[in-house]
Amino acid sequence: MARYKVILIYDGTEFQGFQRQVEVRTVQASVESALRSIGWQNSTILAAGRTDTGVHASGQVIAFDLEWDHSPRELRNALNANLPADIAARLVEPVEIDFHPRFCASARRYRYRLFCDKVRQPMRERYVWRVWPPVSIDALQESAKHLIGTHDFSAFGTPPQPGGSTVRKIFTSSWSNDENEFVFEILGNAFLYHMVRRLVNLQVEIGQGKRKAQEIISFLGSMRKELVQGLAPAHGLILEEVVYPPEIGGN
Amino acid sequence: MARYKVILIYDGTEFQGFQRQVEVRTVQASVESALRSIGWQNSTILAAGRTDTGVHASGQVIAFDLEWDHSPRELRNALNANLPADIAARLVEPVEIDFHPRFCASARRYRYRLFCDKVRQPMRERYVWRVWPPVSIDALQESAKHLIGTHDFSAFGTPPQPGGSTVRKIFTSSWSNDENEFVFEILGNAFLYHMVRRLVNLQVEIGQGKRKAQEIISFLGSMRKELVQGLAPAHGLILEEVVYPPEIGGN
Repeated sequence: MARYKVILIYDGTEFQGFQRQVEVRTVQASVESALRSIGWQNSTILAAGRTDTGVHASGQVIAFDLEWDHSPRELRNALNANLPADIAARLVEPVEIDFHPRFCASARRYRYRLFCDKVRQPMRERYVWRVWPPVSIDALQESAKHLIGTHDFSAFGTPPQPGGSTVRKIFTSSWSNDENEFVFEILGNAFLYHMVRRLVNLQVEIGQGKRKAQEIISFLGSMRKELVQGLAPAHGLILEEVVYPPEIGGN
Repeated sequence: MARYKVILIYDGTEFQGFQRQVEVRTVQASVESALRSIGWQNSTILAAGRTDTGVHASGQVIAFDLEWDHSPRELRNALNANLPADIAARLVEPVEIDFHPRFCASARRYRYRLFCDKVRQPMRERYVWRVWPPVSIDALQESAKHLIGTHDFSAFGTPPQPGGSTVRKIFTSSWSNDENEFVFEILGNAFLYHMVRRLVNLQVEIGQGKRKAQEIISFLGSMRKELVQGLAPAHGLILEEVVYPPEIGGN
């Protein structure tokens, strides 16, 4: 019996989020079902984080214990042969038996993509949020840099456990753009529930000139009891990477 | 009553092709249904071409006659409000009453995207064909240039009408690549049924070193009675543009 760490990619469109629930299609249930068809008999896998309904991942991390007599590469191929088309295992590697994808993680990187257009663009809109009126890259960049550092993000989300800390440390936060597409990338030690989507929505309001970039500062701190209004849609969000210290499961 | 030309974008994944058929979801039926909800009472729309099941379009062209008292832009918005999420009208413009999107077209541009990877990539594979072993860009470029000119493409497809001509004129044909993604772009006066997908599949075999680039020449000509084996999957193909002479519906 050994513990394996797996990097998962999934298209979140057709899933009711990551976490297993009765009678709905979830990423966790699909992965567990694939594992069972290759001999896994435990009751649950471990995961770095629970993505919401419709959120995508190119770097979700899971772990499980399995009796496996072949190579990790063969395990990856066996998993991919049993997973549905909208989930794939990118990398499989053996890890220490006490490796936990959530508790061992030192940071998470999310990416949010949007584009500005007055008219719908079906193929693009599966993974990118369409926004109109257009946003200013300067305003976005200015607002994003205010997020860097250690702040109380209670206005932007709720902690995984009721009463838990709402303080998070943001290492990098920036926007880039190419023609009418804008990409927000944020690396933090951890994130509150819906935090990235609230941060994006507020920044889009700033980018569209409905608010000033400095306003974002007033939302950072424990003074506020209420969540900021507005949530960017799930389909623009992707969990890009879960980062581990080099000594435990780091790449 | 005026005739309108519309440029359509659609994600072909969930359609059984363009052409209306009983009891299946098609692009044509969805567009006609949207038109009916804004007062259109005719029986059928005209289209530049019939894309197959799973083929996408960013530049399909349709036309229809409609009594419409508002601007073309308002017609576009009304259409988009009534079309499903996987179809959008990009541009609506009034045209001469005898404009026919198929018969007036002087050329069509198709694009085929593929990427080389040993492992599945769910989000990418909706619109891009995954190929392994990898292809050589030099071999692809060499084979593509042989297609330029006027040739009998009977080995690559069947004409729209039985017994019709299988001679087509290719204006440009080339591959480009960026990291592990390869894009084939072909502009021709018209295309036979399944022609682009057969051309791509054969070129991939050449790109993978299974055939020589010169072999493509032996398939161009009327000597062959049989279709070349193998069809690249539909989901990598996109109808990019239908070109019209400047004097009739040209942009």
